[in-house]
Amino acid sequence: MTTLADLLEPRSIAIVGASDDPTRIGGRPLSHMINQHFDGGIYPVNPRRDTVQGLRAYPSLTAIDGDLDFVLVAVPAPLVAEQVRAAASKNARTVMIFSSGFAETGAEGTAMQDEVTRIARETGVRVIGPNCLGAFNSETRFYPTFTSTIDRATPQPGGISIASQSGAYGSHIYMASHMAGLGIRYWLTTGNEADVHVAECIRLLAERDDVHCIMAYAESIKDGAMLVDALEVARVNRTPVIFMKVGRSEVGAQAASSHTASLAGEDAIYDAVLRQHGAWRVKSTEEMLDIAYACRPRIYPAGKRLGLVTISGGAGVLMADAAEDHGLDVAPMPEDAQAEMKEILPFAAPRNPVDVTAQFFNDLTLVPRFTKAMLDRGGYDALIGFWTSVAGSPLLGTPLLGHLTETMKDYRDRLILHVMLTDDEMKRRYDEAGFPSFEDPTRAITAMAALMFFGEAFANGTPDVLDLPDLPPLPGGPLGEREAKAVLAAAGLPMVEDRLAATAEEAVAIARQMGPVAMKIASPDILHKTEAGGVRLGVTTGTAAAACDEIMAGARAYAPKARIDGVLISPMVTGGTDVIVGAKTDPVFGPVVMAGLGGVFTEVMKDIAFRRAPVSAATARGMIDELKGAPLLKGARGQPPADLGALAEAISRLSLFAAAHGDAIESVEMNPVRALPGGCLALDALIIKREV
Amino acid sequence: MTTLADLLEPRSIAIVGASDDPTRIGGRPLSHMINQHFDGGIYPVNPRRDTVQGLRAYPSLTAIDGDLDFVLVAVPAPLVAEQVRAAASKNARTVMIFSSGFAETGAEGTAMQDEVTRIARETGVRVIGPNCLGAFNSETRFYPTFTSTIDRATPQPGGISIASQSGAYGSHIYMASHMAGLGIRYWLTTGNEADVHVAECIRLLAERDDVHCIMAYAESIKDGAMLVDALEVARVNRTPVIFMKVGRSEVGAQAASSHTASLAGEDAIYDAVLRQHGAWRVKSTEEMLDIAYACRPRIYPAGKRLGLVTISGGAGVLMADAAEDHGLDVAPMPEDAQAEMKEILPFAAPRNPVDVTAQFFNDLTLVPRFTKAMLDRGGYDALIGFWTSVAGSPLLGTPLLGHLTETMKDYRDRLILHVMLTDDEMKRRYDEAGFPSFEDPTRAITAMAALMFFGEAFANGTPDVLDLPDLPPLPGGPLGEREAKAVLAAAGLPMVEDRLAATAEEAVAIARQMGPVAMKIASPDILHKTEAGGVRLGVTTGTAAAACDEIMAGARAYAPKARIDGVLISPMVTGGTDVIVGAKTDPVFGPVVMAGLGGVFTEVMKDIAFRRAPVSAATARGMIDELKGAPLLKGARGQPPADLGALAEAISRLSLFAAAHGDAIESVEMNPVRALPGGCLALDALIIKREV
Repeated sequence: MTTLADLLEPRSIAIVGASDDPTRIGGRPLSHMINQHFDGGIYPVNPRRDTVQGLRAYPSLTAIDGDLDFVLVAVPAPLVAEQVRAAASKNARTVMIFSSGFAETGAEGTAMQDEVTRIARETGVRVIGPNCLGAFNSETRFYPTFTSTIDRATPQPGGISIASQSGAYGSHIYMASHMAGLGIRYWLTTGNEADVHVAECIRLLAERDDVHCIMAYAESIKDGAMLVDALEVARVNRTPVIFMKVGRSEVGAQAASSHTASLAGEDAIYDAVLRQHGAWRVKSTEEMLDIAYACRPRIYPAGKRLGLVTISGGAGVLMADAAEDHGLDVAPMPEDAQAEMKEILPFAAPRNPVDVTAQFFNDLTLVPRFTKAMLDRGGYDALIGFWTSVAGSPLLGTPLLGHLTETMKDYRDRLILHVMLTDDEMKRRYDEAGFPSFEDPTRAITAMAALMFFGEAFANGTPDVLDLPDLPPLPGGPLGEREAKAVLAAAGLPMVEDRLAATAEEAVAIARQMGPVAMKIASPDILHKTEAGGVRLGVTTGTAAAACDEIMAGARAYAPKARIDGVLISPMVTGGTDVIVGAKTDPVFGPVVMAGLGGVFTEVMKDIAFRRAPVSAATARGMIDELKGAPLLKGARGQPPADLGALAEAISRLSLFAAAHGDAIESVEMNPVRALPGGCLALDALIIKREV
Repeated sequence: MTTLADLLEPRSIAIVGASDDPTRIGGRPLSHMINQHFDGGIYPVNPRRDTVQGLRAYPSLTAIDGDLDFVLVAVPAPLVAEQVRAAASKNARTVMIFSSGFAETGAEGTAMQDEVTRIARETGVRVIGPNCLGAFNSETRFYPTFTSTIDRATPQPGGISIASQSGAYGSHIYMASHMAGLGIRYWLTTGNEADVHVAECIRLLAERDDVHCIMAYAESIKDGAMLVDALEVARVNRTPVIFMKVGRSEVGAQAASSHTASLAGEDAIYDAVLRQHGAWRVKSTEEMLDIAYACRPRIYPAGKRLGLVTISGGAGVLMADAAEDHGLDVAPMPEDAQAEMKEILPFAAPRNPVDVTAQFFNDLTLVPRFTKAMLDRGGYDALIGFWTSVAGSPLLGTPLLGHLTETMKDYRDRLILHVMLTDDEMKRRYDEAGFPSFEDPTRAITAMAALMFFGEAFANGTPDVLDLPDLPPLPGGPLGEREAKAVLAAAGLPMVEDRLAATAEEAVAIARQMGPVAMKIASPDILHKTEAGGVRLGVTTGTAAAACDEIMAGARAYAPKARIDGVLISPMVTGGTDVIVGAKTDPVFGPVVMAGLGGVFTEVMKDIAFRRAPVSAATARGMIDELKGAPLLKGARGQPPADLGALAEAISRLSLFAAAHGDAIESVEMNPVRALPGGCLALDALIIKREV
C-alpha cells in the first residue's frame, strides 16, 4: 500500500488561505464542500477573520485543536514552506498546495519547491503540488479543488477514476466524462509533483476496490519504477489503465518540457513500457472516454476473435477494415455453420461479417439466432452488433434489446458492443442491460481492441520475475571491442570467435587457420573503427599481412595517442540476416533492451522494439514479432528462416546482462548480430560505461 | 454536365408498385412526399386500385398522360425490365429501381440486371439501382426512398450532400449527420449500379452551386475515369469531397466483393488517386461528419502553418502531437513577438502552442491580444483555440465570443476552430459566428488537417494535362530484357548500355572493352533470369568466357524450348541507391505509375508511391518525397545524395510511356533503377504486354 492510502478519505480538512469569497481560489473548495455537505471536519485558516463562509476561522494551523489530517495550502509561494512544516508538526498526513510560482517560473521558484520536497522527505508528510488544481472524492463529497468545473457539473460517483499531471487538462477530461454520462469516483491532479507523482496516484487508485477503471494523463513520468509497480497492481486487480502520455512529437515534447520543466524521455520507450505492463495508450481524450465507458460491464475478452453482425453489408466492411488496423481477428464462421445460416436466410452473408440484411425488419429473431450461432459455432471472444438508427425506433429497439438480453445471458464471459443511433433513453436501457453502445462503428472497434488488449494483459499476468545473473564487475577503464566481447561471452552471449594479432606475422598465421577473415583495429580508445580506416572484410592469407599493416598505420594516423593492441581477427560469417540487439539505461525506466533489423531499418525506418529489461526469451520473441521487418527473419524474399529461438534467447540474455549491471552501463550494443538458420552470432559489440 | 443533371429536380414522379400501405417499400416514398408536400406531380401506378394513399392510381405507366420524368420501380425483379422499357417509351429521363434480386443474388439476377443496363444504353434513360434505397432532395421535398430514417428525422436542407453506394450505410451517414445538426441537401444511393455509378453522382453534386461539401461512400469504383472527372469538377468549384472508400483490409475487401459482386482494386491505388485529385479519404464516419461540419465557413487555409492558443498547457502539447501526426506545421512565433507577449503576461507560454494560462479568467482580453499577435506576427494560416468548459460558462463564453468575433473580422481568410465543452445553445452561437467547435481537441486537429489539405488542393488546381508522346507500337510477341530496354531507351528513359554476345568469344571481347561487367541470359522466353541461373555480376575479361558458357548451358537446362539470343552484357555501375520505377494498368484507374526503394522496402515494408499516369516531373518528385525510405536518397547514413531531379524525370517519362501505350501494356518495370549522385540509370527492364 502506498502511504497515500488515506489521501482520499480524510477525517478533516484545514484550508490555509481560506477565503470568504466563494469565487476565489481559497474560497472555492470551501464553498464546494459546504454546499455538497462534506461530512468531515472543515477548518478554515485565516488570521484576519473570525469566520469564513459561515465557519469558525482559525488564525493558524497550530491554533486548531488536536491532530490534523488533510491540509490545503492556498497562500503565496514564499509563505508555503512554513505552512507545510506547521502541517507536519500537527501530524497531518497530506498537504495539498494550490499555490503557483514554483519550479514552473524559474530558479527562485525551483529553490522554494526543493525546500517543500525536503520537508516532505524529512517529516514524512505527503505533499501534492504545488501548482496543483486539486482532487475530489465524489462519494464523500470531499472537494479540495478550485476548478470551476465543479460548479457547472456536480461529480456523480462511478467506477472510473482520473489521475492527471495537468490540472487544466485533467479538468477537461473530467468535464468531458461528466457530459458523456460517466461517473467519476476519484479525481487527482498532481501539478508540479514536488513529492507525489502521478504514478503514485495511479497506484493509489489501482489498490482500491471501488475503482474499476483508471484514466491517466501525463506529460512526463518522474519515477518509472513506481509507474511499473502501479500498473502491475492494476493488472493483478484487473483494473484497466487507459493512459494518455503526451509530448510524442518534437513540438509537443518541447512544449511539455517548458511546461513541466522535466525531460520527457524517449517516446518509443514509454510506448513499449506501457504496453508491456498492460496499460492501453490513447492519443485522444475521446478514445480514453470510449474505452472507460466500454469497460463498464467489466468483461475483458479472452482472445482477439471478433464476430461482426450487421444489418448493413457496408458497415461490416468498414468494421472489418478497422478491426484489421487493430490486429483483431475477424475469422470466418465454420463452413457448415455458414451453410445452416444460408438455409435460414438465403440472402444473408454468413461468413463474418455476418449480414442479416434488411430482412431484419421482417424477422427480428434473425438477430438472436445468428448471434447464438456466432457464439456457439464461431466461438468468437466478443461481438459487435451494428443496428444503426433502427435500434432507436421504439417498435424495433425494445424487442431487439429483449432478444439480445435473452441470448447473452448464457454467455456471461462474452462482450457485445453495439453501434446504434438512438436517443439517450434507449441508450440508457442498453447500458443497463450491460450493452455499451456507440454511434460510430470505428469507435466501437477501437474500444473493443482496447478491451481485448486488457483481457490478454490480465490473462498474461505479471511477467515472471527473472533472477539476475551474478556477474563479475566490469573491467576498469573504457572497454574496447575485444573486452566487450569477452565480457558478453562470459555472460552467455553468442560471440564470434576472435583472436588478437599484434603483428602482421601473427595475422597471417591466424588467417591461414581461420580461412577468409574480418580484421579490425584492436584499441580501447577507438570506438569508431570504420572511420579510423580500421576494418577489412574478406581478408585471405595472401592479403593478411598488408591488411594488418594498413590498419595499424591508419589507426596511428587517425588517433596518435590511442593505445593499440593490434588487430582483432574473426572468421567471416556468411549468410543470415543482420540484427541489432542492444540495451541502455533510460532516465525514466532504467535498463531497457532493444532489438531491430540493422542499418536502414533502424536508422531510417525507426523499426525498433523496446522493453524494460530484463525480459524472458518468450517476451523477446514478441519483440521480434512486432518488427515491421520481421518477415525478413521468417523467410521473406527466399531467405532461409532464421533461428528465432536462438535470437530471442540472445536478446533475453543481453537484457539480463544490462539489468544486472544496472547503473554501471550507459549502453551495450551487439551490432550486428547475424541471425542464421541455426543459431545467431554477434560479430561486434560495444559497451559504454556510465560516467560516475 | 452529366446527363443526370435533372435527376434531383424532376417535374413529376411515377411510382410503379405504389402501395396504399405507407409502411411498405412501395408505400413509403409516396407517404413521405404526400406528408412533406412535394410540389411536383405524383402518379401512383397500381393496376389493382383506383386510388393509392388518396391519390388517383394508374393501371400502368403508359396510362399516364404525356411524358414522364422520374419513374420509381418497386415491383419484383422479373417484372422490372418491362417497366424500364415502358418508362423509356414515355420519355422518362430517370428510372430508379428499389427491387432487389439482381446481381447480388447470382447468375440469374445478373442476367436480369444486364438486361436493365442494355435498355438504359439503348434508350438513353438513366437508371439508378437496382437494389437501391433511393435518394432525396430536402429542398423540394422530393423523397424517392423507402428508408425509414425519413420518418424519424425529417431532412433539413443544408450545404452538405451525400453520395453512397451502400443504401443502409448511406442511411446511417444521413442519420448521424441529422443527429449532429448537419443539414443534408441531396442524398443519393446507387445500390447495384446497373447504369449510374456513385462516381457520376459525385460529379452531379460537384456541378451544383447549392452543394458546398460532398460526403461519399463506396466499396468499389466501377468507372475510375468518371471519378477523376468528378473530383476535378469539385476541385474547380472549390467543393471539398470527403471520401470513405471501404474494403481496405483483406477481410473487408472480401466482404465488399461478396457484397457488391465487384472487385475492389488495389487499395493503395485508391488512396493515391483520391489524394492526387484533391479528395480527403476518411476511415471513420465521425471524421467525415467532423470535416463536413468544419467546412461550413468555407475557409480553406492557404498553407499548413497552424497556431494553437490554449488555456491549458497540456492541451497544447496534446494538439501539437496530433498536428505532427498530420504533417501540420506548428511553427514557433517570431522571437521578438514572443518577448512582447511575455511582457503582457510573464507566465504565458508564447512560443506556439501559446498558453494564456488561468490568467484568462482574470483578463479575457488576453485572448484577442494574443490571437491578433499570432495572426499578424506569427502569420499562421489557421488557428485552433482551446477553451474547454469555460467557453460554456455564460459569464465567460459570451464575452469570449464577442472578442473572437471582433478580432477575426479583419482576417476573413483565416480559419479558426474551437475546442469547448458547452451546451447546444452556446455551440450554436459560435457556429453562427462562423466558428466551428469540437469537444475533442484531436478531432479539431484532424478536421483542420483536412481543411488545409483542401486549401492546398484548390490552390494547386487541376494537374497540367501532359501531351502524350507519339510512340511507335510495341514490337510483336513477348519482349525480352533487350527489347524492353531498347523500347524504353527510345522513349527517352536512361538505360544502361548493353551489348549482345552470341558466343563466348564475343563476350570476352565486349568485357575487355567495358571493364567489369554484368552478364545476363538474353531470351524473350526467360523472364526470371536469376532463377534460370542466368545472371553473373562483376565478370572480368578473364572469367568472361566461362561465365558466358555457364549461363547459356544453365538456361538451356532450365528452359529447353526457350529461344536463346546469347548473353546481354552491361558495364557494372557502382555506387548509388537502387530504386524500382514501374507502371501498370489498373482495372479501375487505367495506367498508374509507381516508385519505391528496392527489395525489402517494396516487398516487406510496402513503401511504394502510386499516381495515376501520366505525371509531371514535379508530381514525380512528390512521389519520391512521400516514401518513408526517402532519406536514403537524400544523404542518410553518409550516402551522397542522389540526383532526385533526374529520378523524377525518369518516373515522369515512364508514366508518359505507360499512358501512351494504354491498354497495350499490362505492366512495365525498371528494376533496379540506380539513383546516382548525377543522373540515374535503369539496369534492367521488363515489359509485360496485355493479353488481348
